[in-house]
Amino acid sequence: MKIIIIGGVAGGASCAARLRRLDEKAEIVMVEKGPYVSYANCGLPYHVGGVIKEESHLLVANEQTFIKQFNVDARTNCEAINVLADKKEVVLKNVLTGEEYTENYDYLVLSPGAQSVRPPFPGIDLPGIFHVRTVPDARSIVEWIEKGNPFMSGMHRYSGFQTLRPKTRAVVVGGGFIGIETAENLIHRGFEVTLLQRGEQILLPIDEEMARPAEAYLRKNGLNIVLNDGATGFAKTEDGHLEVQTNSGKNYVADVVILAIGVRPDTTLAKLAGIEIGKRGGIVVDENMRTSDPNIFAVGDVVEVTDFMTKEQTLIALAGPANRQGRIAADIIAGRKASYRGTQGTSVIGFFDGTVAWTGISEKTLARLEEKDYEKVYLYPNSHAGYYPGAKPIAMKVIFRKSDGKLLGAQALGLDGVDKRISVFAAYLQMGATIYDLQEAELCYAPQFGSAKDPINFAGFVAADVLAGDMPISHWPEAKKGFMLDVREGFELAVERVDGAVNISLGELRGRLNELPKDKTIHVICRSGQRAYYATRMLAQHGFDAKNVSGGMLSLAQTHLFSSNPD
Amino acid sequence: MKIIIIGGVAGGASCAARLRRLDEKAEIVMVEKGPYVSYANCGLPYHVGGVIKEESHLLVANEQTFIKQFNVDARTNCEAINVLADKKEVVLKNVLTGEEYTENYDYLVLSPGAQSVRPPFPGIDLPGIFHVRTVPDARSIVEWIEKGNPFMSGMHRYSGFQTLRPKTRAVVVGGGFIGIETAENLIHRGFEVTLLQRGEQILLPIDEEMARPAEAYLRKNGLNIVLNDGATGFAKTEDGHLEVQTNSGKNYVADVVILAIGVRPDTTLAKLAGIEIGKRGGIVVDENMRTSDPNIFAVGDVVEVTDFMTKEQTLIALAGPANRQGRIAADIIAGRKASYRGTQGTSVIGFFDGTVAWTGISEKTLARLEEKDYEKVYLYPNSHAGYYPGAKPIAMKVIFRKSDGKLLGAQALGLDGVDKRISVFAAYLQMGATIYDLQEAELCYAPQFGSAKDPINFAGFVAADVLAGDMPISHWPEAKKGFMLDVREGFELAVERVDGAVNISLGELRGRLNELPKDKTIHVICRSGQRAYYATRMLAQHGFDAKNVSGGMLSLAQTHLFSSNPD
Repeated sequence: MKIIIIGGVAGGASCAARLRRLDEKAEIVMVEKGPYVSYANCGLPYHVGGVIKEESHLLVANEQTFIKQFNVDARTNCEAINVLADKKEVVLKNVLTGEEYTENYDYLVLSPGAQSVRPPFPGIDLPGIFHVRTVPDARSIVEWIEKGNPFMSGMHRYSGFQTLRPKTRAVVVGGGFIGIETAENLIHRGFEVTLLQRGEQILLPIDEEMARPAEAYLRKNGLNIVLNDGATGFAKTEDGHLEVQTNSGKNYVADVVILAIGVRPDTTLAKLAGIEIGKRGGIVVDENMRTSDPNIFAVGDVVEVTDFMTKEQTLIALAGPANRQGRIAADIIAGRKASYRGTQGTSVIGFFDGTVAWTGISEKTLARLEEKDYEKVYLYPNSHAGYYPGAKPIAMKVIFRKSDGKLLGAQALGLDGVDKRISVFAAYLQMGATIYDLQEAELCYAPQFGSAKDPINFAGFVAADVLAGDMPISHWPEAKKGFMLDVREGFELAVERVDGAVNISLGELRGRLNELPKDKTIHVICRSGQRAYYATRMLAQHGFDAKNVSGGMLSLAQTHLFSSNPD
Repeated sequence: MKIIIIGGVAGGASCAARLRRLDEKAEIVMVEKGPYVSYANCGLPYHVGGVIKEESHLLVANEQTFIKQFNVDARTNCEAINVLADKKEVVLKNVLTGEEYTENYDYLVLSPGAQSVRPPFPGIDLPGIFHVRTVPDARSIVEWIEKGNPFMSGMHRYSGFQTLRPKTRAVVVGGGFIGIETAENLIHRGFEVTLLQRGEQILLPIDEEMARPAEAYLRKNGLNIVLNDGATGFAKTEDGHLEVQTNSGKNYVADVVILAIGVRPDTTLAKLAGIEIGKRGGIVVDENMRTSDPNIFAVGDVVEVTDFMTKEQTLIALAGPANRQGRIAADIIAGRKASYRGTQGTSVIGFFDGTVAWTGISEKTLARLEEKDYEKVYLYPNSHAGYYPGAKPIAMKVIFRKSDGKLLGAQALGLDGVDKRISVFAAYLQMGATIYDLQEAELCYAPQFGSAKDPINFAGFVAADVLAGDMPISHWPEAKKGFMLDVREGFELAVERVDGAVNISLGELRGRLNELPKDKTIHVICRSGQRAYYATRMLAQHGFDAKNVSGGMLSLAQTHLFSSNPD
């Protein structure tokens, strides 16, 4: 049996290694058009920033490892240029020599990944404009920064004590993972960085109100984020700088430009092979990662996958799913059972000291699907026990089904414990958990690690109280139009208050119920929602129509959620 | 409706607050015999060490909070001294004035907690011998350290620049959470600390081979751990120090002694009330936390709970379960539905830079139950991507059912990411997950947070390979008696080798198969088990009977598992 694997990074490399372990005798050829196999794309922005100092650290395994340890015929600088599916042949080309030759296969595995989106903007080929997709991309950026650009020569070698030349500017186009991570790293390199985002928010997979604090935190750390404006072209200024032209007509001068507009599946070869391409532009595969040609499998960023939650077909460029898909294709080829359960889209991004992470469905996706059977809660629990030094609030949005409490999605951000909580949410989501299961979570607790009632438990408690009708909630857009009762203490209002809200502190509320209207919905506000919960319960039992404004002031003042002050 | 709650800390305080939220009109009396309600027991060792500087930080909510915010009649320094269950009356005593009086109730909730075990050893009442169970306990220790003991006066005020007096000694009796945490904190205070543990290991809930690296790491950080020796008595030496006498006949001089031998349910009142006490010595409750008297509930450390995994009755003194049980009792009293699902025993302890955590069944529990239908794997994945700086190995033991792959338990230790992984395991365990679910886990991945194949995925991959028969494994005791093949590189053997093992590196193995016996089981060894896996697969496919020695050298050399070197 002979298997040819096209693409030697995440999905392809996983497939080759797994296949060898399952079948010692199979002939396995793995070709990669670039100079490296199995490298760490996700580390590229950190290599640009000098956090990962050596390029060699990005190379998880090399060609020789595959050849020697796995007896895989690994070929770098080898591009597949055609597939003759009816003959089960692939045409390969040595990109260094130009030599072309044909190899036959029993099974072909396509793992070509995705390509950086590169719009046909004027000037896009000017020197100093880069993608961050491959090791050579990163090397080019580092070389450009360190010696390529006459305005920067020698100024930006990474060092804790570097002398900054004022006004050395970078423009990053695109506010997704790669754009933000690279922007942060360029700031660490001493650049003044502007990030252009065509849409209304960065980090499109999460909801807008959760992106806002991320934007504010990035700005606080020196990133100039411009929303609702996208690049339209590039030019060279008279004095030799780059200029980024935008939709708004505003131009940005830059000494280096990073294009991080997104990726699209690299289906060039799939089209030549005549296999089915889906509506989203990725290769169509079944749950065994098999394409429309039974002898051709496809894995990784190039395929359309089923969204685990919505059951829609979607494109997800994530390393974890790519690795697991590679294993599954190998299992099937080796005659095992395996299937891909779909992708939850669990993601995390860190910048400066902050973290944003999410899993499952966002509210905007529910809106697109016109799904109404859901509720959401906002909460701001501490990352660990508040009485132990160093606790930081975690801003959490948890979305669940109203009719049965099923967990649908979670988004979180903060300075500590965020990746842990979203990983736990991801496990619950995978297992089909409800918010009632979250109530009963029994997670690690010692004061430096969590709380006796972990943020996960709290999410369950709050959501269950909402569904039980014990805590009717409202959200700010609705609350602002109605009667608002602020139950915080007077001194808290001095710092920040809501126009039009009546203030009666929780401690005084039982004695001043006569000041409140019985004919209106009372939207109860406190700092995070906890005291408002007590007040809401109290009011409801005294015959008032009260709702807790979910997340209180912290949900309103989203710009300072990345806080080092525990709630 | 009038509810009296005995005990104002975790379970009792949670019950009172929840009850008020559910029922604005109920009369709620919460009595606490100590001077504080709702304080953080789990923080006490850190207050002794000065990490939590102010005693007030330990007080999560005070009496006035309960009175004002919750309209709960909270009474500190108020001891319940009798229960007349037939009359639904409780006899209370003001411990400051000695006044006794009777209160009637509709429902009584017992949350008296547990008492420190205090054996009738000679000299146990000598000054300088302390428990670490209450705020006054911690205050007494701090006072003793700072000014009570003439040998230490003024020497140990917490400061980063303190001058240490040589040979100021502490003895901690007991190697559980409190003993270890207090020992660490006393080391930070400048003491020479000896920890006496009667049994063969510290941290009894985990398996011995997982306790060993914890012991080694504590020793490396200056703790003198003495196993298999317990205190038998205490005396004062001629020069005024304390002396701890032990089973072995060896005596230890100390300037302060901490007794952390364990706790037992405080059932004094339960016995007076005539409610049923179980075989383990705790109050028997049903899943609604109701005792044998339908008007009396009990929650927290005082009750016997069902072990979620074994379904046995057990005693678990953990804050998380106590809090949730308090909520459940309140729900039931208020006419809601709620039930306690049992306790997994999820736990975590941190000391110095290390963490040990676990959830579910240990192997020693399986042995006690004479359960044979299980397998275990050891693995040592990195806490995050190895190519990003700062990754640390996590030592993991994962136990699962052989017949169906159900996850049974997990134990882990290391310098980073341990609490996160055990919290994720805990969520899977709760949801009845199998190792196949772990394979499909989709957790947070960016290089500073995890790996494309997270340690959780790896645990699933390894376990599934074992169950599929793809990777027969053995464990060291068996391997050492058989034919051992070490597939590491020569230079690795120079550092550490196994007597009697044949060495053929993985890269050379395919060419040297003729050197291996076909009539013996070959136990294959590498550093962590990964290369041995490749070798085992290769050998099996060439007709050898090969087993991967699970966890390789890292499982053998358990004493240096807390490592800062990624694998």
